[in-house]
Amino acid sequence: MIRLDAHHDGSELYVDRVAPQLGETVTLRLRVPAHLSAERVWVRTAPDGEPHWDPATVERRGDHETWWRAEVRMVNPSMRYRFLLDGGAAGYAWVNAGGTVHRDVTDGADFWLTSAAPPPAWLDDAVVYQIFPDRFANSGAPRHWPDWAVPSQWDDPIHDEWRVSTRQLFGGDLAGVEAHLDHIRSLGANTIYLTPFFPAESAHRYNAQAFDRVDPLLGGDAALVSLSAAAHRAGLRLVGDLTTNHTGDTHDWFRTAQHDRTSPEAGFYFFEGDGPDDYVGWFGVKTLPKLDHRASALAERMLVGPDSITGRWLRPPYDLDAWRIDVANMTGRHADVDTNHAVATAMRATMAEVRPDAWLVAEHCYDASADLRGDGWHGTMNYAGFTRPVWSWLGDHAHRLQVMGYPASRPVIGGAAAAATMSEFVAAMPWRSTRASLTLLGSHDTARWRSAAGDRARQIAGAGLLLAYPGVPMIYYGDEVGLQGESSDAGRVPMPWDEGRWDHEVLGAYRRLVAARHESPALQRGGLRWLYTDDNVVVFARETADDTAVVQVSRGAHPTVEIDLPAAGIEHGLDAVIGDETAGRRLTVRAEDACVNIWRSSHG
Amino acid sequence: MIRLDAHHDGSELYVDRVAPQLGETVTLRLRVPAHLSAERVWVRTAPDGEPHWDPATVERRGDHETWWRAEVRMVNPSMRYRFLLDGGAAGYAWVNAGGTVHRDVTDGADFWLTSAAPPPAWLDDAVVYQIFPDRFANSGAPRHWPDWAVPSQWDDPIHDEWRVSTRQLFGGDLAGVEAHLDHIRSLGANTIYLTPFFPAESAHRYNAQAFDRVDPLLGGDAALVSLSAAAHRAGLRLVGDLTTNHTGDTHDWFRTAQHDRTSPEAGFYFFEGDGPDDYVGWFGVKTLPKLDHRASALAERMLVGPDSITGRWLRPPYDLDAWRIDVANMTGRHADVDTNHAVATAMRATMAEVRPDAWLVAEHCYDASADLRGDGWHGTMNYAGFTRPVWSWLGDHAHRLQVMGYPASRPVIGGAAAAATMSEFVAAMPWRSTRASLTLLGSHDTARWRSAAGDRARQIAGAGLLLAYPGVPMIYYGDEVGLQGESSDAGRVPMPWDEGRWDHEVLGAYRRLVAARHESPALQRGGLRWLYTDDNVVVFARETADDTAVVQVSRGAHPTVEIDLPAAGIEHGLDAVIGDETAGRRLTVRAEDACVNIWRSSHG
Repeated sequence: MIRLDAHHDGSELYVDRVAPQLGETVTLRLRVPAHLSAERVWVRTAPDGEPHWDPATVERRGDHETWWRAEVRMVNPSMRYRFLLDGGAAGYAWVNAGGTVHRDVTDGADFWLTSAAPPPAWLDDAVVYQIFPDRFANSGAPRHWPDWAVPSQWDDPIHDEWRVSTRQLFGGDLAGVEAHLDHIRSLGANTIYLTPFFPAESAHRYNAQAFDRVDPLLGGDAALVSLSAAAHRAGLRLVGDLTTNHTGDTHDWFRTAQHDRTSPEAGFYFFEGDGPDDYVGWFGVKTLPKLDHRASALAERMLVGPDSITGRWLRPPYDLDAWRIDVANMTGRHADVDTNHAVATAMRATMAEVRPDAWLVAEHCYDASADLRGDGWHGTMNYAGFTRPVWSWLGDHAHRLQVMGYPASRPVIGGAAAAATMSEFVAAMPWRSTRASLTLLGSHDTARWRSAAGDRARQIAGAGLLLAYPGVPMIYYGDEVGLQGESSDAGRVPMPWDEGRWDHEVLGAYRRLVAARHESPALQRGGLRWLYTDDNVVVFARETADDTAVVQVSRGAHPTVEIDLPAAGIEHGLDAVIGDETAGRRLTVRAEDACVNIWRSSHG
Repeated sequence: MIRLDAHHDGSELYVDRVAPQLGETVTLRLRVPAHLSAERVWVRTAPDGEPHWDPATVERRGDHETWWRAEVRMVNPSMRYRFLLDGGAAGYAWVNAGGTVHRDVTDGADFWLTSAAPPPAWLDDAVVYQIFPDRFANSGAPRHWPDWAVPSQWDDPIHDEWRVSTRQLFGGDLAGVEAHLDHIRSLGANTIYLTPFFPAESAHRYNAQAFDRVDPLLGGDAALVSLSAAAHRAGLRLVGDLTTNHTGDTHDWFRTAQHDRTSPEAGFYFFEGDGPDDYVGWFGVKTLPKLDHRASALAERMLVGPDSITGRWLRPPYDLDAWRIDVANMTGRHADVDTNHAVATAMRATMAEVRPDAWLVAEHCYDASADLRGDGWHGTMNYAGFTRPVWSWLGDHAHRLQVMGYPASRPVIGGAAAAATMSEFVAAMPWRSTRASLTLLGSHDTARWRSAAGDRARQIAGAGLLLAYPGVPMIYYGDEVGLQGESSDAGRVPMPWDEGRWDHEVLGAYRRLVAARHESPALQRGGLRWLYTDDNVVVFARETADDTAVVQVSRGAHPTVEIDLPAAGIEHGLDAVIGDETAGRRLTVRAEDACVNIWRSSHG
C-alpha cells in the first residue's frame, strides 16, 4: 500500500501566479491525503521578517484527499511559506518542500514566491538540442586552419590526450548546422543551444579571443545571421554561450590590459602585482584570466545596455533568444569579492530592455539554489539535481562513469534515493527556477549518457525521465542516435551523417518521448508528485488542472506494482502514451528490463 | 544498541579556529564510528564558487572510531563545507550538519566557516539573568507617577487585561537591581540583561520616548552609572535592550518628524502620505512608528560611531557590555526595503570601535539563521531552536501553554523529535552563532517556564537542559524561585523578596546546575553529540579536548538505558556532578520522574 504525502509545489495547480507583484494576493492550494486529514490548516509566511498566519479553507473534500486553499499577500519581493496542519489525523504537522514533518522545522525547505519578472513563457514547450559547433556538421566551406589547430577528418578518432583533442578541429561550422535543421526538427527539438561561436584557440572556444565577432572558422558573423534567420523561420530558437568568468589570454581586452596597465581594460582583470603576468586565472590557469566585474567599464562593455556584448547578440540581425553562461557559478567570485548577483541582474536588465522574453541560464555543477532566488539567473544546468542522481541510479554500475570531477567513485543508489535527491534539489529553489533550468543527461562536459547507461534500454529509460521531468529538457547532439564516449573529450565526436551508423531504435524512442512531451501540458508545466519509489522503479505524476501524466521509469525487472489511482488523487482513467497498457482505477506497473512508460489523461 | 553517527561540529575539538582569516589554513576533524568506517575521506568546499576537495588523513584509529583530519584554506570570507566518505563500510556517504546521508545532497546543511570577527570570548562562561526593571526590586525612592500609569503595590496582582497590565507600574528601579546583586551572584549568574531602561509610556518600555536618557522612574542616568559600576565591581556584565525597528509615537524624533516634515527626523520613518498620521507602524500599530534605516542621518544618530546611541551607552560612564536588539528580525524590513544586514553590520562596526568585546544579540522568534552568517548579529534569542522544542517535549501536556503566537496548539513531541528540531537549528547556522545566542526557557515575552512545565521536577529537568546546552543560558528573574504566570503579562510578576515565598528546592537545583556549568569547559564551549534519544529521555555529550560532560534529561519514568562509553567514543570514566551514580565503562541512565543528571570526566 502506498501512503502518499500531503502535496504542494509551485506549479499552476497549487499557485495561481508565477510572479505575484507587491500587494497582490496569491492563491495557494494544498492536497492532504485522508491519512493526514487535518481540522485546521494555515499558511505561514514572514512578511517584513515576522511570522504571519493565513488560515486555509476546505475547497474540496473527497474520500481520498482534501484540497485546502489559502490566500497570502505579497508583502515583500521574495516570500517563503509553508503549511501548518493541526488536529485530526495530522496531529501537528508542517508541510514544506521536504514533505510532512510532525515537529518544528527551520525555514530551509520553505516554498518560495518571488515578484521578479518570470522566466520566458516559451520555455513551457522548449526542447533544447545542444550543438558543439566544430563537431556537428561541416558545410564543406574552404577554410584556413590556424597554427595551433590539429586539423582532423570527420571520421578521425578523438585523440586520447586532451591537450591534443582540445586542438583538434573537425571543421564543423554554422552553415553545417543550418543545413541540418531538418534533423533537429524531426527529433521534435525546437531550440538550439550552440556552445561558443566566438573566436578562440581551442575546439571548445571557452577561451575567447573576442566577444564581438563570430569565429571565421565557423563562417563569421554572416553565418550566424543566416543560421539565426533560418532557424527562426523553421520555428527554432537559438541559445548562445557566453563566458562571464574569464576570457582567453589572447582576448583583445586582455592583450590591451597586459600591454597598457593604465587602459580601461586593465581594470577588467584581477592584476595582483606589477608584472604583466601577475594576474588571477581560472583555477590558476594562466591562459584563462579571470574577469573582475567591479569595473564599471567592463559592465558597460559586457553587460549593460543594447550595445553591450549581452545586448548586441540578442538584437537583429543575430537575434539570439537566450544566453547560457559558462562558469556562472564562479563569475565575479574571487577572495573577498563577490559580484555574481550583480552580474546576473545587470544581464537580466539588459535582456528586459532588448528582448524581454530572453532566457538566462547559468552553468553550475552542484547546488545552484543560493544563486537562483528569482531576479538573477533564471535557471541552471541541472547536473546536481538531475544528471547525477539519474546516473547514480540508472547508470551502468559495473563500469561507473563519473558525472564530473568527484574524487570518490560515483555512488550506486536505488530509485527511492534518486527521487529523494531530486526532490531535495527541487525543494531548494523556487519552482520556477527548476522549470527554467536545463534538465540534461549529459553535455560536452560529461561522458555520453549512452556510455554511462551502458546499454540501449537504460539509455531510453533515462531519456524518458529527461523528457518527463520538470525543467527544459536538453539533448546533446547525437545522443539521439546512440553516440558514445567515456569522457567529455571522447564524447565530442563528430556527428555521423551516415544513417547506417545510427541507433534507430534509440532515435525512435527519443522522437516518441519528445512528441509525448509536446502533446502534454502536464509534462511541460505540471507539478511533480512521486507516487511510488523503490530500488528499481519510480512512478510519478505530472499534473495540471486539465491534464495528468503518470510516468514509470524502471531500471530493470521488478515485481509488479499496483497503484490505486483514485487513492492517489487521480480520478480519471489513463491511456498509454508510451507503452501499451491502459488503466482504469488501477495502474499496473511492470518491467522486465529497463524501460519508460507514460500514461495520460486529458480531461480539459 | 546505540549506533552513533559520524560527528563533526564547529567546536574546538573539530575546528581549530573560530574566525580563520583569508588565506589561513583551518584544521578540521571528523570522528567516524566503526560501523561507518571509510577508506577515504575528503572535505568538500566551494572556493570562489567551484567545488574543491581536500583529502583527509587518519589521525587516530581505535576499536570504536577513527578520527580523520583535513586542512582547508580560507579562500573566501565565508565558506561552507561537508565531508565525503568513500569505500569500506561507509560506501558513499556525505556527512553534514544534518548527519550522514548515502546519496547526494544540497549544500543546505553544510557546515560554516566565517572570517568575521568572533563573538566575545567572555560568552564562554556567561550565565545571563534577565531583569524586567519595573518588576525586580523597588529601592523605595520617591517618584512621581505619570498620568498614563496604573501605580501598583508590590504585592498587587497583575491585571488580567493587557491594556491595563502594560500600564501597571510597580516601582522597580535600577537602584533596586543594584541592591540585589548578591542574589544574582549567589545564583551564579554573571551577566545582567535589563529590558529597556529608556523612558516610555508603558511598563515594558519598548515604545521608547528617547534613546539618550534613562527613564527618571528608574532613577535616571545616575542610577545606571551607579548600577553599572557596582555590577562590574561585583564581576557582573550588563546587557542593554535597544529597539531598532521602531520608536514610540511619543519619541522625540517622531514628534519632530510629525511636526516638521522637512526635518531630518522625518526621514527616520516611513511616511507614506502627506498627513502626519500617514506612516507605517509595527504591525500597523500607530503608537509604534517603524524606523527607516535608509536615512543616513538616522544611522549617524543611532548606529554609527562612538556618539551614536549604539556607541554612547557602551562607553563610560555607562559601560554596557552588550546590546540585545528588540524585534531585530523585522528591523529595516518593509515591503521592498531590506536594510537589516546593514543595520547589524553598522552596529558591529561601532562596537568594534568603542568596545571590541561587546556582544550583539538579536531578538528573533523563529528561524534566524539567514541573519546569522557571521558579520552581523552575533546570535539570537534561541526560542525556535531551544525554547519551543523543549516546551513541546518537557512541558505540561495536559495544559499546553504556547511559546509564542502560533494559531495551532503547541505540539506534544518525544525526546527524539525535540533533539531532531534542536539539531536542525544548530545545523542551520554557524556553530559560533549558536554559541553566541541566548538559550532560554522563557522571558518577558512568554509564560513562565514553571507554569509551562507544570511541576517542579519538569522545571528542573528543563533547567538542566538549559545550563548544559550550547549557547548562553539565560534565566528570567524569579524562575529560580519558581515564579509562575500563564502568559507573558502574567509572568511579569514582581519578584518576591520574602524568601518564605520561594521554592528553595528549585533555587538549589538552579544554583547547582549553574555551578556545574561554571566548572566544566565542556558544558561551556564543548561540542554537542546526541548519544541516545527516546520519547522520555535524551542523553548527550558535551566535549572539549580535556573535558567531557554527559547529560541525561528525562521527562518522566522510563526503562533503564545502558550506554557503552568506549563504544560511544568516551574513553574516561565519569563522575556524577548532578546525580549520584558514577560510571566506568558503562553508564546507566535511569529515571523515575522528570530529572537531570550530569556526569563529567576531566582529563586535562
